[in-house]
Amino acid sequence: MPERITSVQNPRIKAAAKLRQRRAREQQGRTIIDGVREIERALAKEFPLLELFLCDELLVGAEADALRQRVASQPNLQVYDIPRDVCEKLSFGERSEGAVSVANYPVTSLDACQLSSTPLIVVLEDVEKPGNLGAILRTADAVGADCLIAADARTDLFNPNAIRASLGTIFAVPTFEATTAETMAFLRKHGVQMFAARVEGAVSYEQVRFDGPTALILGSEAEGLSDRWLADDVTNIRLPMRGIADSLNVSTTAAVLLYEADRQRQT
Amino acid sequence: MPERITSVQNPRIKAAAKLRQRRAREQQGRTIIDGVREIERALAKEFPLLELFLCDELLVGAEADALRQRVASQPNLQVYDIPRDVCEKLSFGERSEGAVSVANYPVTSLDACQLSSTPLIVVLEDVEKPGNLGAILRTADAVGADCLIAADARTDLFNPNAIRASLGTIFAVPTFEATTAETMAFLRKHGVQMFAARVEGAVSYEQVRFDGPTALILGSEAEGLSDRWLADDVTNIRLPMRGIADSLNVSTTAAVLLYEADRQRQT
Repeated sequence: MPERITSVQNPRIKAAAKLRQRRAREQQGRTIIDGVREIERALAKEFPLLELFLCDELLVGAEADALRQRVASQPNLQVYDIPRDVCEKLSFGERSEGAVSVANYPVTSLDACQLSSTPLIVVLEDVEKPGNLGAILRTADAVGADCLIAADARTDLFNPNAIRASLGTIFAVPTFEATTAETMAFLRKHGVQMFAARVEGAVSYEQVRFDGPTALILGSEAEGLSDRWLADDVTNIRLPMRGIADSLNVSTTAAVLLYEADRQRQT
Repeated sequence: MPERITSVQNPRIKAAAKLRQRRAREQQGRTIIDGVREIERALAKEFPLLELFLCDELLVGAEADALRQRVASQPNLQVYDIPRDVCEKLSFGERSEGAVSVANYPVTSLDACQLSSTPLIVVLEDVEKPGNLGAILRTADAVGADCLIAADARTDLFNPNAIRASLGTIFAVPTFEATTAETMAFLRKHGVQMFAARVEGAVSYEQVRFDGPTALILGSEAEGLSDRWLADDVTNIRLPMRGIADSLNVSTTAAVLLYEADRQRQT
């Protein structure tokens, strides 16, 4: 039976609600996950959840049923039954679906990264917007990329908004944080060819081969990639731009490159 | 010399600020455009602006200079010089860049649509999110698509958020509204092959040819495409999904398909 919590003053609820702030995530070494689908995917991928708060009144529909089934198969998971007002406090302005979970912030050091024989890797320099990070994770999941590396990231990767924007695919795509120097060293050590997306790239993306070990490197939307990624063994590629604008959204660029890599690898 | 307006009570300012509401846009037959780059692109594409409000204090940087140059070349444009508080009222919570413009809501009937000899057309059913519409317009501009048709749209296309999310590319990509039946009739009349993106599509997207007259048809993110697009002459295509998720963001799907069409057309 789940334990019942009825007060917004309950210390567990207060500690969980604090995880909306980056500083609290860093202090507690935990993060907070919103959404029925997101939590179901975390459980499916055996992401270690510490506490799960469920509000029966809000939990309706097929996806909620799938989550309940998944929860029933995890007897060791600590589940709390909460009323609507407590759920709303936990959700903090998010449209609540009746499920909120607390999890340990995962280890995101590159040392833990395992690659396939012909890896496909996404490197994001200086990720700032959780929405872009989430959208790129969805595409990385869809094409079965090995991992995503956030180089010199200004966002914490497992922040609640990134988790939400990824629709939980962040639990399926191994995700790491490193400095740019560490990332380049890692890619070189594993013989991964580096392709940097730049508006002024010398080669159009469809003229290169992504079917060997491949890293696709993307910069922030505002700034583009930094000069730290200029090197003899980094190929600068571009997407054709035939209109009035000179750049695309970073998640759009990532999608075109990832699906081109996928296309080349299947044929 | 631009005319100076100093009061937030000025009737022009009040009428313009009202255009944040859809009903006012419909009543006045006008819309409102935010942003230096967006307004510069509207002028570059000869989109008929009625009034331009500029706040000198906020207008700084290279893009602001480009806008000023563009304005100087348009002696008939009605320009108003406004102080910061008036600009903030006009901007209504938007981060203001010091430039806001009022324009006639354009004609968006398909009767006005002119196609190239081998058109590439994006059809969006039931567009709801201005952010997705804007992102798709950016990609459509980048690959030089002929036009975008919003079929059975629930949003007004030229709403300020869509204009903003498009970064002004909405002024470069001819954009129309029609019913689904009108859109299908239009595409058939012009011999345009219809490809509907569906999660359960029978054919993977890279196995079809987009180098003839092509329409790429996309549904809303929440619902997917409706059954109205099921027909013998509509080919259902899918993107490979190799991960845990079963769908991509609609703007991601559009980008992959549009760049695949572009790639096929160039080679």
